[in-house]
Amino acid sequence: MKIICTQSDLQQKVRTVSRAVAVHSTIPIMECILITAYDDEIRMTANNKELGIETIVPGRVLDQGDVALDAKVFSDIISKLPQSDVHITTDDNFVTFINCENSSFNISGRSGEDFAYLPQIENDNYISISEFALKQIIQKTIFAISSNESNITLTGELFEVHEDQLRIIALDGHRVSIRYEKLKDSYGDERVIVPGKTLNDLTKILEGDAEKEVNIYFTKNHVSFNFRDTLVISRLIEGKFIDVMRMVTDDYETKVTVNKADLYSCIDRSTLLSKENDRKPIVMHITDEYMTIDMKSSLGSMREEISVVKEGKDLTIGFNPKFFTDALREIEDEEVSLYMINYKCPCFIKNEEGTYIYMILPVNM
Amino acid sequence: MKIICTQSDLQQKVRTVSRAVAVHSTIPIMECILITAYDDEIRMTANNKELGIETIVPGRVLDQGDVALDAKVFSDIISKLPQSDVHITTDDNFVTFINCENSSFNISGRSGEDFAYLPQIENDNYISISEFALKQIIQKTIFAISSNESNITLTGELFEVHEDQLRIIALDGHRVSIRYEKLKDSYGDERVIVPGKTLNDLTKILEGDAEKEVNIYFTKNHVSFNFRDTLVISRLIEGKFIDVMRMVTDDYETKVTVNKADLYSCIDRSTLLSKENDRKPIVMHITDEYMTIDMKSSLGSMREEISVVKEGKDLTIGFNPKFFTDALREIEDEEVSLYMINYKCPCFIKNEEGTYIYMILPVNM
Repeated sequence: MKIICTQSDLQQKVRTVSRAVAVHSTIPIMECILITAYDDEIRMTANNKELGIETIVPGRVLDQGDVALDAKVFSDIISKLPQSDVHITTDDNFVTFINCENSSFNISGRSGEDFAYLPQIENDNYISISEFALKQIIQKTIFAISSNESNITLTGELFEVHEDQLRIIALDGHRVSIRYEKLKDSYGDERVIVPGKTLNDLTKILEGDAEKEVNIYFTKNHVSFNFRDTLVISRLIEGKFIDVMRMVTDDYETKVTVNKADLYSCIDRSTLLSKENDRKPIVMHITDEYMTIDMKSSLGSMREEISVVKEGKDLTIGFNPKFFTDALREIEDEEVSLYMINYKCPCFIKNEEGTYIYMILPVNM
Repeated sequence: MKIICTQSDLQQKVRTVSRAVAVHSTIPIMECILITAYDDEIRMTANNKELGIETIVPGRVLDQGDVALDAKVFSDIISKLPQSDVHITTDDNFVTFINCENSSFNISGRSGEDFAYLPQIENDNYISISEFALKQIIQKTIFAISSNESNITLTGELFEVHEDQLRIIALDGHRVSIRYEKLKDSYGDERVIVPGKTLNDLTKILEGDAEKEVNIYFTKNHVSFNFRDTLVISRLIEGKFIDVMRMVTDDYETKVTVNKADLYSCIDRSTLLSKENDRKPIVMHITDEYMTIDMKSSLGSMREEISVVKEGKDLTIGFNPKFFTDALREIEDEEVSLYMINYKCPCFIKNEEGTYIYMILPVNM
């Protein structure tokens, strides 16, 4: 194999596929990046069996062939080369020569034969969404997934397609994030659970351009995200996702509208007094024009008053402050509305446009 | 005690003194910041017995008194308050109320009586140097101190004053950094070893203004740095510092002049192939117009050629690449000159102005 690419293209593409490289695998080839150069097209692939990424690298193929290179060594070398043309050449034993200006590196490679190629997904079950919208709705919900693997379905996010609407849901035992995105076209129904790790990696790779489309393909066991010259393919999580929408209600007894930044910084301050181990709740006293937020812990106490617009009943209710700050951080509106029924029922933070619902369970005081 | 200060002044001053707060001490008061408000002056002090920092905080004293507050809790609260006036009030039991706009915090404090006050240093053994120069010469030498406490003197830097010259020396077993700074006045001779940790903290606090002076006071067991409204006082390291200057020579058999950035990036690339555990040397082959740098390790090999101007003999010599990049990173000149005698003698990197000497021992190949 003999190829020529620019250092900057190589660096960007190595960074992209590196997210699917296995870390500390017992199978050395899983720690490699596969470079293939056939039919005038250079591709890089990494695959850790859960997640696979393949991308096309701009460049020239002088001799066809392929080689698998240790991802860490290869990416370290590429990142430190001067910004110039990089020549990558392999011999019959997969020894690989990397030349750039006056620098020559010489590292050992492996045959691509043992590399686990990505599953081929070709079907009509796909949707189109802009990079920007996909990146946003993932980032604005993913904080609510569970890190506890005892219920594996909660470590992923539910993707639901119904006609021209994509709904994404994440939850742990205490809160729920729901985001809606209107699609340009209508599609058949889909309902899959995508691993949180895949989505995290995806947001790092997606550039977030509003003009560029991502095609998302669904199969029984896999989901793939195709955008620009890149394909991200992931196993799905099997199992039944909790029926969250059954819990969502439009009823309320108390509605509070408040400046989001004020509420955020007040609750954020209250977390100062809660140590990692004794998660103390904040207590909200909601009256006609003011909401008072109280926090008491072994370190001391805090009280703060915020002006609000209230509809309905007065209410005293307690929350884990972190669940509130996590949700408020992802809301872009200047004002937020909280809908509550009583001190035992969840609080809903949602907007009239219906693009998001954050649900937070109260704590016993 | 009752004082009013702005949030930004408090935040800056807490950050300054926090460097001298003990971490995980068995003595709770050593994890505190002492606030004293007497004679219309507010001071904050922290003291972990090795290092003490005291600073004056702009503000108004409404009631005299003092209180010691847990540094972490206090600094967390201050950092999250709105940018506004902060009122700090203590009652007879040292319960402390921190009020800012609509926020009120209430934390427990301690009497200042148990606090270890800083030693008083008042003598004439001092020198003056600009903040900028002091910060620079520390930063440009400190990487060479030893982290191995088996020889405690090498964990600090030697400060030597002779007439109008300050010389700072740091070394571990393999390399030496020496920086010279000309002082505005002449002073009596001083020779003390300042702990590396103190100097690291000092560089973080020093703003580095070329127009502001630092007065450095020397006593038998302490050194103090006085600047702006802040006093940093540190224990000295006892013991005899290695007589480094005996090793420094102006003799050479090979002198190489080379572009610093080129040499740095070439050696930096070579470090890619050396794993943490098998520190492989780089080999420099110096001939008339070129220096070739070679590196071989279990991961592969690298070769690179750099144009140089050479005086004297050809030479092949090996080095730990990290020692070279550490030194080159701190040199501000565009070109550097390396002076060598043979493959067993140290290499000196120094300039004609005599402001720095970096000495690096070669390795056996």
